Parts: sequence; structure tokens; C-alpha cells
Amino acid sequence: MPRHPAFASTLAGITGSVYSRLAHKLATYQGEIYPLHVGDTYLPPAEGCRAENFTEATHPGMHRYTAPQGRLDLLDAIIDRTARTQGLGAERGEVLVTAGATGGLGAVIGAIVNPGDEVVILAPFWPLIAGIVRTFGAVPVLVPFFGVASDAASAEAALAAAITDRTVAVYWNTPSNPTGLVIPGDWLEALVGLARRHDLWILADEVYEHYAWGAPHVYTRPLAPERTFSTHSFSKAYGMAGNRCGFMIGPAAAMEAARKVSTHSFYAAPTVAQLCARAALAGPGDAWAADAATKYAAVGRAAAERLGLPAPAGSTFLFVDVADGLDDRGLAGFLEDVVEEGVFLAPGESFGPYPTHVRLCYTAAPPDVVLRGVEVVARRLGR
Amino acid sequence: MPRHPAFASTLAGITGSVYSRLAHKLATYQGEIYPLHVGDTYLPPAEGCRAENFTEATHPGMHRYTAPQGRLDLLDAIIDRTARTQGLGAERGEVLVTAGATGGLGAVIGAIVNPGDEVVILAPFWPLIAGIVRTFGAVPVLVPFFGVASDAASAEAALAAAITDRTVAVYWNTPSNPTGLVIPGDWLEALVGLARRHDLWILADEVYEHYAWGAPHVYTRPLAPERTFSTHSFSKAYGMAGNRCGFMIGPAAAMEAARKVSTHSFYAAPTVAQLCARAALAGPGDAWAADAATKYAAVGRAAAERLGLPAPAGSTFLFVDVADGLDDRGLAGFLEDVVEEGVFLAPGESFGPYPTHVRLCYTAAPPDVVLRGVEVVARRLGR
Repeated sequence: MPRHPAFASTLAGITGSVYSRLAHKLATYQGEIYPLHVGDTYLPPAEGCRAENFTEATHPGMHRYTAPQGRLDLLDAIIDRTARTQGLGAERGEVLVTAGATGGLGAVIGAIVNPGDEVVILAPFWPLIAGIVRTFGAVPVLVPFFGVASDAASAEAALAAAITDRTVAVYWNTPSNPTGLVIPGDWLEALVGLARRHDLWILADEVYEHYAWGAPHVYTRPLAPERTFSTHSFSKAYGMAGNRCGFMIGPAAAMEAARKVSTHSFYAAPTVAQLCARAALAGPGDAWAADAATKYAAVGRAAAERLGLPAPAGSTFLFVDVADGLDDRGLAGFLEDVVEEGVFLAPGESFGPYPTHVRLCYTAAPPDVVLRGVEVVARRLGR
Repeated sequence: MPRHPAFASTLAGITGSVYSRLAHKLATYQGEIYPLHVGDTYLPPAEGCRAENFTEATHPGMHRYTAPQGRLDLLDAIIDRTARTQGLGAERGEVLVTAGATGGLGAVIGAIVNPGDEVVILAPFWPLIAGIVRTFGAVPVLVPFFGVASDAASAEAALAAAITDRTVAVYWNTPSNPTGLVIPGDWLEALVGLARRHDLWILADEVYEHYAWGAPHVYTRPLAPERTFSTHSFSKAYGMAGNRCGFMIGPAAAMEAARKVSTHSFYAAPTVAQLCARAALAGPGDAWAADAATKYAAVGRAAAERLGLPAPAGSTFLFVDVADGLDDRGLAGFLEDVVEEGVFLAPGESFGPYPTHVRLCYTAAPPDVVLRGVEVVARRLGR
């Protein structure tokens, strides 16, 4: 029992934000800064989809609560879009508008795990997912997958080796943060088949669905709608991460359970964020995303080439093994050295057991800035 | 172990939103609607503090992430204000900007409870607090308090009777949702002393701090800064509930622990909401709140008088025992009957063991609308 001044035992395994540890350096650095550590975009949202486009005069009551599930017009726009993108529609009861994908995954995981249960996570992984699992007392089980599995059979074997009697769910992120890889359709079919045979829930994190240019993005939910939680983010899709709005689609009974958690975590997504999202879904968002994808692909390709890496297939990241640039101070020393030149990178251990990797986001600053930062990293590595 | 298609055992005790069950009726009702069920305001935020006041031109990057703790300028404004209102300042590390008070209390409770621990809640209580406690596997222990305790000694005795070996924290809300009562300073001193002797954390929910006109609001944190979490809401303070922004103040180590939970629940408060909050704290907010308090007090007094009740001392609610208006259908029948006349009320059981009470919010619609709704209720009760 914690009591004052002790804390919940679940927190022991959770590290603080990987970014906040660098924040004070970033705030005081003199000179051009290369913020390659955070997954964000330098592009403002499409015109007509910004907070400034909604006023109390045109949208009376826009600073009041919405229903916890989300505005009805947004739910319906999501359903229309899902029918088009996934080839499989949804009922209103299958959709939950959330405080970003983070809030959505938190709500769903809170709804499906008991303390001690295991959630298998394909690694390297989006850093927050392990902490979300731990927040509810469950155990993240990491499976090296991206860059390891080479076909459907080895993908299935990697997951199979991690499943135990305590496993309740499996999580994957495609297009992948941090690797830039996209899971092929036949691999997904094999993974889904295995999940079904073991009665597992599937957490399909598809927040980079618009950003797959090197290989087609394949949606998981149509393969197993009875057990899949489709995870989506207006943040990543349409450049509005600060709005804190995303959505989940899953079986109606499960989404009702998830809504119990979300109501008690953030109550509802922000009203103005829902208005921005609704406007983006009406057309401007997809045009914006298509333009952004072209820009992201170009800078991603250029960054990879400078670092001597294969071009990313999607997402907005490169995951770089910098082992040949480390001295006896290890990765911490490397990260500090590049900070002295204004470059901020995310350490590999935030993404799994990758002590010699860094993650580099190539979209959080304009391409010319990003490429100057990449130049610093490449020189440090002697590339 | 839940596995598909089962859910987490924590959810069993959590009911869905009290409001969502009435939402479909509200959406289809023909005629004037009296939305007395939801705690919100009919007043838009102060000019200069609305989403429309911030643009990409004047605030470049305003749709991007902020640091999980909150914007530095907002943290500093909160600290300034806290020094003035509480007579006790704070360090930045003691403040966390959250997705409303809901997100703040969720983060803190996630940080201080283990499954099976007990949190004592002074009842009747804000409905979401019991569900927040359950979300993390802990047990809400309800203590009839408001309207029961009559002095500092009886207040202390009520709390003392509920403390067990499993108790880790105590929660109170003053000014009180739903009763409109304000806990006097000498009662708080007695409660705090008891909490200290039992090594309990204190959750002091003060979201209606600006709305105490019948008795002075007394802040708990100065009485026990080492164990108190001050809970605040820009939603209630400044009429921006849809923005999802509030803040918590507590001991630095505890707030670092809470930030681990909040980062994994909603990541950060929305950026534009933080800009609105910052603008409100610069002056317009307190002027708005003073004006709103005058308006709220007047309509609250008029509503109470029509119902034959004492005037509320604060918050934005009346908690009405309607036992003399019930037939053999019980409270459900009463609630359905008033809905037929356009009046929506929250059922007493959402606030604790109060099967013959309803909660009535007198600020979610303009005063003339509210008072027409109150007239319907009064007539039903033969008052």
C-alpha cells in the first residue's frame, strides 16, 4: 500500500518522457536547433481546419463539453471515411473519439487488461505503448520484429514465441514508428490468424496510415473486425498534434468498455479539436496529407541517403544504429555531443532493447533545417 | 485474464456516463429544453480567451505538441496566481497542466494507488471520482458528509469512521458538487490533521474555487502542502469546459509520478486550450469569473427559493430530495416524467447512496431558461 509519501508500484517500470530530459538544453541552446527527437510536423494544418476558423459567433457553445463519445457529426464523418479507407464501415457504437491516439490506446488497454496480464508489443515500438500497458498494471512483452522478420512465416513465428498463458493482446504499429517500415498484407494475415487462434485482442496502431509511400498500407481491422482496435490520429494525419484528438474503432461492446475508461481519463476530446478534425475530414485533410506525404518522402529519402541507409517506406522516422560512432561514454555521450551542435535525437532504449540506436524524425522542422541536422549526425558517424 | 471477448475486471463497478443515457432523448425532444443535468455554463469565455483569438500567424506552431507538463508561460502564470489565491506559491515541478480536472485527478490517483487500496470520498460527491478510483483497481469508500457533518468534530468523526488499513487517500470537493455547500476552514483543519496522523494523501478538488458567495472558500493545500493535491479547472473557472484544460498542484515528487500517468493517458493538455487559459490568467478570467459568480448566485438563489430550499453557498448545483414527488416507479419514473416536459436532471445515485435525490445545475442555460425548468420541477413536487 503506497500511502504518503510512497507511490503506486505500477510506476516503477515507467520512465519519464524521453523528450523532457532534453527540454532544458533545448530551451537554452544558442544557434540553429534541429529538433529531430520529437514526432511532429513543421506544417500548419490546412486552411479551414485550424482553431482560428471556428468562433463563438459561427459555432455557439464551442467552448462547452461534448458528449464523451464525441460529436455526432464527427462520428459520422469518421464512419464515412472508414468505409472508404478500410472497405469496411462501422456503426456509431464502434467509434470513440479520444485525446489523441495516446488517449485511445489508454482507454482500450484499460478496458482489456487486468494486473499481471501480458501485452505483446512488436519492437522497436512507439515509446508510449509500454508505459500505457504498465499504467494499468499489465506487463509489456517485447518481440524484436521490425528488421528481423523477413516473411509471413518468420513474422508469425516471432509473435508465436512470445505468447504465454498470460497474453491478452498484441500491439503493432504500421507504418512503423520508429523504423519507417510497413508490414505487408500477407504478414498481417499470418499475425491475425495467430491472434485469433489464441483469443487475443489486436491493437493495430495505424496513425501513419497516410504516410506509406514505399509500400502500400494495409488495414488490419477488415481481417478481424471482431477483435481489432483500429488506432487513428488527427495529429499525425492532418498536422494537429497539439489539438489532442484521435479515434479508435473496435467492436461495440469493447468500445463501450473503453468509453468507461476514457470518460474517467480525459472525459472527452476537446470540442474545438473535434471541429478542426471534422473540417479536415470534409476534404482539406486528405489533400493536405497527400501534399505532406510527398514532402515527407522526399526529405526522408534525402536523410536516409546521407546516412547511407535504405529509404524509409513510411511514417516520419529513421531508426539509426550509431554503434560505430560511440565511445566509452556510450549512447548518452553521443546524444550529448550532438546536442552541443543543436541536434536533438531520441535514444534507442525508448523503443525497446536498442542501446546503440537513435530515432530521427525528419518532419518536425522544415526539410532544409532537418537536412542540416542530419549532416551533423552523418559527420559524427564518419559517413 | 480477460482475453477476447472479455474485459478488465475493474470495469464491473463503473457505470457509463449518467448524461449519455439521456442524450438520445435530448436530441429528439421537440420544444424548449432545460439541460439541468450537465455541469456547464451558458456563458462563452471572456473575449481574448477564446480559441478564435489565437492564429497560426500570431502563434506559429500553435497546433503542435507542447511539453507534457504544460507550456512554461502557463506554468508560471499558474504559480503567480497560486501565490495570490492560496498565499503559498509553488515551484514549476509542483504543477502539472492536465486534460481538465478529470485528467488531473486520474493522473494523481494512478500515481498513488495500488489495486485493492481504498480512497475515502466525502459524499455526495462529483460523479466521476468513484469511477476514476475504480479505473486503477482501487476501491472508493463513501462517507455521507455534506449535510450530515455539523461542526469540525463531527466532520472529523465521519472521516475517521471510514479509515482502514487499506486507506491511502481522502477526497473532498469544496465548494461542493452537487450540494452547493462550502467546507468551513476549521472543519478542513480537523480533516487535514486526521489525514496527517494516518499518512493519507489528500485530494482537494477546488474546481469551484471562484464560485463561493455564501461562505468563504478555504484552500486545503496551505494546511498540508506535503500531502495535498490541489485540483483546479479552467473549465469551471473561466467557462471553457470543452477546451479540456485544468491543473494540479502537489509535492514535486508526486507530480513527477503523476506526470508518468498523464503522459500515458492524454500526453499533454491541448495547446490552444493552454493559450486560452494563459490569456484568462492574465486578467480577463478573474473579471469574467466575478461577473459569472454574481449571475450564478442570483439564479441559484432564485431556483432554491422556488424549490423551498436554502440558498446555495457556492458551486453551480442544487441537490434536491424529491422523495415526496415519487410514485411506485421510483426516481426513474420521476426523471422520465420531467423529460416529457423538456427537463433533464442527474439522478442522485450518481453522487452516492441517494436514491431519492436529483442534481440540478442552474448555469448550463441562461437564467430565464433555467428558472422555467425549475418551475416544471417545483410543480411536479407540489411546491
